[in-house]
Amino acid sequence: MAKSANEDQLYIGIDGGGTKCRATIYSAKNGVLGTGLGGPANPLHGLERTLESIMVSTQLAMRDAGLPLESIHQIYAGLGLAGVNLPSLYEKISEWEHPFKEMFLTTDLHTACIGAHDGGDGAVIITGTGSCGFSHVKGESVNYGGHGFALGDKGSGAWMGLEAVKAVLVDLDGLGPNTSLTGVVKDHFNTDCGMGIAEQMAGQPSSSYAKLARYVFDAARKNDEIALHIVKEGAEYISSLAKRLLENNPPRLSMIGGLAEPLNEWLDPAIAKLVEVPIQPPEMGAIYFAQQTVLEQNQKVDV
Amino acid sequence: MAKSANEDQLYIGIDGGGTKCRATIYSAKNGVLGTGLGGPANPLHGLERTLESIMVSTQLAMRDAGLPLESIHQIYAGLGLAGVNLPSLYEKISEWEHPFKEMFLTTDLHTACIGAHDGGDGAVIITGTGSCGFSHVKGESVNYGGHGFALGDKGSGAWMGLEAVKAVLVDLDGLGPNTSLTGVVKDHFNTDCGMGIAEQMAGQPSSSYAKLARYVFDAARKNDEIALHIVKEGAEYISSLAKRLLENNPPRLSMIGGLAEPLNEWLDPAIAKLVEVPIQPPEMGAIYFAQQTVLEQNQKVDV
Repeated sequence: MAKSANEDQLYIGIDGGGTKCRATIYSAKNGVLGTGLGGPANPLHGLERTLESIMVSTQLAMRDAGLPLESIHQIYAGLGLAGVNLPSLYEKISEWEHPFKEMFLTTDLHTACIGAHDGGDGAVIITGTGSCGFSHVKGESVNYGGHGFALGDKGSGAWMGLEAVKAVLVDLDGLGPNTSLTGVVKDHFNTDCGMGIAEQMAGQPSSSYAKLARYVFDAARKNDEIALHIVKEGAEYISSLAKRLLENNPPRLSMIGGLAEPLNEWLDPAIAKLVEVPIQPPEMGAIYFAQQTVLEQNQKVDV
Repeated sequence: MAKSANEDQLYIGIDGGGTKCRATIYSAKNGVLGTGLGGPANPLHGLERTLESIMVSTQLAMRDAGLPLESIHQIYAGLGLAGVNLPSLYEKISEWEHPFKEMFLTTDLHTACIGAHDGGDGAVIITGTGSCGFSHVKGESVNYGGHGFALGDKGSGAWMGLEAVKAVLVDLDGLGPNTSLTGVVKDHFNTDCGMGIAEQMAGQPSSSYAKLARYVFDAARKNDEIALHIVKEGAEYISSLAKRLLENNPPRLSMIGGLAEPLNEWLDPAIAKLVEVPIQPPEMGAIYFAQQTVLEQNQKVDV
């Protein structure tokens, strides 16, 4: 990883997503000094809330590190945020009158990728509530998928949950194949009727659908035809996402998120054996990102 | 159709759905006297708005019929509304202090079915923005499907539009088969990038997706593999919905909605040839429903 000229220099790495915001304080000399956890920080779902969550996680991390709050002005901050691939949101966050010494902003995918490969080039696939692929090789970033719930995010937890509910509603109407998912989903919603399930799910966020994904994996392992079809279709998409990323020749490929482990056994075996564990979490990726950017700035000044 | 004891008695039939509300004024002696058109009237999307749309369409129909507004208190009203299959919404509309002589409430599916079969028993399949099947035979009503956008409504315009966007996003990422839909959808959204399409469609109502259905039919007729797959899968579901309804032995089966005509050629031929044209529109079904209910009430009084 990159080294700052001043080994005592403090950095904060912040990883902001739809459900929580994590912050880690670090110096090259002393390593991790403290961590903090805040609420949702996806600017797509609210700018004010995002900035508040960033400040909460920052203050908790500073307290954890035993640092006085005034020292915030001496800390370099690296921010990896969901949603800032949209230029309008990138600009809004950039215009924030932040309290840090300097702030370096990029997407949560980029910082996750930097972290997973310990500061080096590589590719990552995120499969949790949503799904997405990202690679950063020789200064070039590319991403695939990640178009959001219902439109895209195939192979994700929310996608699996939605496919399960669709199949159960068809089964309950007697219009399609029977599936053991029907009994499980009826129990989950505590209702016998399709309209009762539809009412409870109408307008729910993707996280409510993602909660059903574990039923699909359970049923697939017991050879339920419908569940097998869903899991195989999802895994096939994730495998093709991996193949597409490998075309960019990343030195490493990692999978991150709650579905990374259960999906592994269903992937194309040639892909599954290539997948390597992420070395560091996204917050550390955000710290490396800030360090690298400071280093580049200093080099420019030196020249 | 049922006849009222008093041939001069005025009836109003109201058909309320997600985009508009239609009202027709009728007497057994003089037939249709006037019609009116109001805004959205699906209580699931707003109770106040629904009642307002009902009153606007009613007042326009009365003006069209040359009736003074005070005479509203002498009119029997039949209402077929989307959403009132949910008991909570049925109750809320029933509690409305309406201005009519009496108000008789049922679902839009029921009044569409009564209208399609000119007051008699039968079955209907609705395929427009959404999809649903309904039969009313010997006093028993049953419905299948209609679970709403993204969860159900297979074979509907919104479902076709969503499937098209999903396929286009996969194609644009180079992760799935090429389709001629990609060019058409890119033109529709005036963007070359998947994220641009996803941004424009995020959070849009089902009607925005239904607008894309015609592209799918066009591409299917030109043998585009992806479009053919979508149209055939949708038509197969609608055919199975028809078969399920026929198990209830309805004397007639009709298809209603904007996709009824374009879907027809893709249905199971055995089903396609059974489909008969709807005889009357849903507003007339609502009038028959009111007439029949008044007649039953009078018979009870006579006994």
